[in-house]
Amino acid sequence: MIPLLGFPLVEPGDDVALLIMEALRANDLSLQQGDVLVVAQKIVSKAENRYVRLADVKVSAEAEALAEKAGKDPRQVELILQESKEVIRVRPGVIIVEHRNGYIHANAGIDKSNIRIAADDPRVLLLPEDPDASARALRKDIADLGAIAPQVIINDSMGRAWRNGTVGLAIGTAGLAPLYNQIGESDLFGNTLEVTEPAVADELAAGASLVMGQAAEGCPVVLARGASLKHSDCGSADLLRDKSLDMFR
Amino acid sequence: MIPLLGFPLVEPGDDVALLIMEALRANDLSLQQGDVLVVAQKIVSKAENRYVRLADVKVSAEAEALAEKAGKDPRQVELILQESKEVIRVRPGVIIVEHRNGYIHANAGIDKSNIRIAADDPRVLLLPEDPDASARALRKDIADLGAIAPQVIINDSMGRAWRNGTVGLAIGTAGLAPLYNQIGESDLFGNTLEVTEPAVADELAAGASLVMGQAAEGCPVVLARGASLKHSDCGSADLLRDKSLDMFR
Repeated sequence: MIPLLGFPLVEPGDDVALLIMEALRANDLSLQQGDVLVVAQKIVSKAENRYVRLADVKVSAEAEALAEKAGKDPRQVELILQESKEVIRVRPGVIIVEHRNGYIHANAGIDKSNIRIAADDPRVLLLPEDPDASARALRKDIADLGAIAPQVIINDSMGRAWRNGTVGLAIGTAGLAPLYNQIGESDLFGNTLEVTEPAVADELAAGASLVMGQAAEGCPVVLARGASLKHSDCGSADLLRDKSLDMFR
Repeated sequence: MIPLLGFPLVEPGDDVALLIMEALRANDLSLQQGDVLVVAQKIVSKAENRYVRLADVKVSAEAEALAEKAGKDPRQVELILQESKEVIRVRPGVIIVEHRNGYIHANAGIDKSNIRIAADDPRVLLLPEDPDASARALRKDIADLGAIAPQVIINDSMGRAWRNGTVGLAIGTAGLAPLYNQIGESDLFGNTLEVTEPAVADELAAGASLVMGQAAEGCPVVLARGASLKHSDCGSADLLRDKSLDMFR
């Protein structure tokens, strides 16, 4: 896990692939076959200009009521609802939803930290429109700049059921199979593995999240080498449990 | 993240601290201040002889009924119940419980893979009796062997709500604070961080799990260097959300 140190602050319209190539050079690195780039959601959202000025938000009656219940800014709640398919749980300070893109996520991943907030014109940052598409584009753009196409994971910090604290998880992937299906393979003693299916993209996203640090936009990109993830063009949807099979919604 | 290659198979009564010291030497490594050893639950359980012969299990009426419902071996279900405080969910093939030690875990973490199973005398492997105590002992034993005391995480692969696949998580820790409480600190732009509390022990446990691989007992110990986790003697309990605060049980 190699942090790309000295990564610049990202602004709307920036070319993240180019910034990564420059950061690789500045860190004396070049991409090798099988390298995975783990990229913080925040810089992808910023480059895609997923900012919303709260002053521009029209609050619905539904958002007004939910904001009351959750004790949150109604404009932020309106955005949470717009970014979601379904509200899963509500308690003071937090609204847990199924995001448009399928992950269960507190406050639809809408963030107020590590973004410039003017007191008189607050804004928030939404998740990328389609993180799998963002990851695919990044993979292609880096290859188009002459490098070996990296596998790409876009990660975001998420809360979990049952456990305290957030963990970085994969919200978008490109060029890799996010689950490593070992079902049917044998273990060390020749027993058939029955239910072993590690979520390798999430494990890597989590480890990289620790390297990135939480408050440090200074390191939003981590190069993981030696992970040996299988190639696939399937994106990250396999990580999401189908609603009909989920016992915890 | 450095795998300790060539780790031997662990048998009941083995001194894991000694095996780790030998593996460090064989891998030309010595422990440095701030190093974290991530150790797979399975080798700790084996060293502690947490094997149970299914032939020795007396099945209760409750286990019999639950086994019917879950379509599982009644003897294994009896052990799941003995190892648990509460059954959370049941569906064919899986019983999700609150383990004695507080984590929500499928089948109480009782495992049949990567252990020697004789067809005529099957046995299973329980989690360590007290993984925090095991981690503390390992930390102390390694220091007693003359090395710098490492921070220790015992990890296990767990399923999650909402997402497919398993992820390595911390079930026992020693010498480190499993949550990194940044609440009240400032972000890059001077905004106060409100709810940022990464579960650093879980992030590291997850990343190390990827390095260990799932079927490979060949690499049950990973040395993580540079993680800069805060020192604490608190153990892993902070990772567990209090039942009264948990919206997903």
